[in-house]
Amino acid sequence: MLLKTDEIETLNDRYRAHFINALSGFKSANLIGTCDDNKNTNLAIFTSVFHIGSHPPLLGTIIRPHSVARHTLENILQTKYYTINHVNESIYKQAHQTSARYDKEISEFQAVGLTEQWQQHFAAPFVKESRIQLGMELREHQHLDINNTLLIIGEIIVINIKDDVVQEDGHINIERAKSVAVSGLDTYHGTGLLSRLSYAKAEQSFKK
Amino acid sequence: MLLKTDEIETLNDRYRAHFINALSGFKSANLIGTCDDNKNTNLAIFTSVFHIGSHPPLLGTIIRPHSVARHTLENILQTKYYTINHVNESIYKQAHQTSARYDKEISEFQAVGLTEQWQQHFAAPFVKESRIQLGMELREHQHLDINNTLLIIGEIIVINIKDDVVQEDGHINIERAKSVAVSGLDTYHGTGLLSRLSYAKAEQSFKK
Repeated sequence: MLLKTDEIETLNDRYRAHFINALSGFKSANLIGTCDDNKNTNLAIFTSVFHIGSHPPLLGTIIRPHSVARHTLENILQTKYYTINHVNESIYKQAHQTSARYDKEISEFQAVGLTEQWQQHFAAPFVKESRIQLGMELREHQHLDINNTLLIIGEIIVINIKDDVVQEDGHINIERAKSVAVSGLDTYHGTGLLSRLSYAKAEQSFKK
Repeated sequence: MLLKTDEIETLNDRYRAHFINALSGFKSANLIGTCDDNKNTNLAIFTSVFHIGSHPPLLGTIIRPHSVARHTLENILQTKYYTINHVNESIYKQAHQTSARYDKEISEFQAVGLTEQWQQHFAAPFVKESRIQLGMELREHQHLDINNTLLIIGEIIVINIKDDVVQEDGHINIERAKSVAVSGLDTYHGTGLLSRLSYAKAEQSFKK
């Protein structure tokens, strides 16, 4: 199948949403936990959390302002704090359900059956059922004029993670933590290790 | 394990790189193919390609200007065109090897044993061995001052994909295409389907 811009533009909206959302490859599945200044909580699944850098430790997320994610965005801009929690195989159905359009006064934690976990001196709720939890502080938000979305950049200021998935050299075995991968808009995958490869060097041959 | 900013800052560089790179969750694995104005080709693996929007179809990538990816960046800025090619289970070792620091005059296609595929009227090389190939046109690049990286935004103007992985409603079965997922800096995973979930609605109950 070979499609160019002309053909891509003729696809109907729903078909195109499924199709284009799968093209980037596998995506992370994270629940973003927030609250407003009155501690009304919100929880929403995001598949667009991505690594920006390690030093300082930064993650980015794309948010569409008027989408179902608008409450998450409002809370982040209001409080400057949010949590990112890996979705694992035990909670992916609840996580997906947070993508429904709940009213602002309903907390998705209660609606889908996940548990708020609060940490001293951190102003946003973590997801207790998640094995890899990150506390984030907003650093920047940039409007992407090209399609009217916002790039949110946050610094990881708290990491709460099960000891048994952290390896000696710092690598985290997120497969053992049962984190899931996502494709397209709605498809969830477990993973199986192919291999961990050594640092690539130009002067060394490698096994195919 | 509970780490806060103070402890994160004391991690040594290599440990931190492994650790922080795994925190966002599973990542896509894509080969970006480029060439300079003299058609000298370059190929480099990226795990930071992410979905920005479907309409227009946009993908983003983070590139560190002075890293091993500098030739890719120079070529994209020079020609405005590049390709994004899914890494699959048959080629992930070659794909990983493109992360080695080759001299500019060496094409990673030859160095790692992957095949250039050219399409009429498209100014960058695709990877023949990849089952999902995208032709990209540069739309924007933004400097992220916070850590001196570049956000590259491109529009998908060509899609070349095996028919048998595209489902009736537009969803692409990238698992059947054997696309791989990445965790951390160097760990490659195949996937197994958990399930495809239906569109979530607030007024509908769901199965946990």
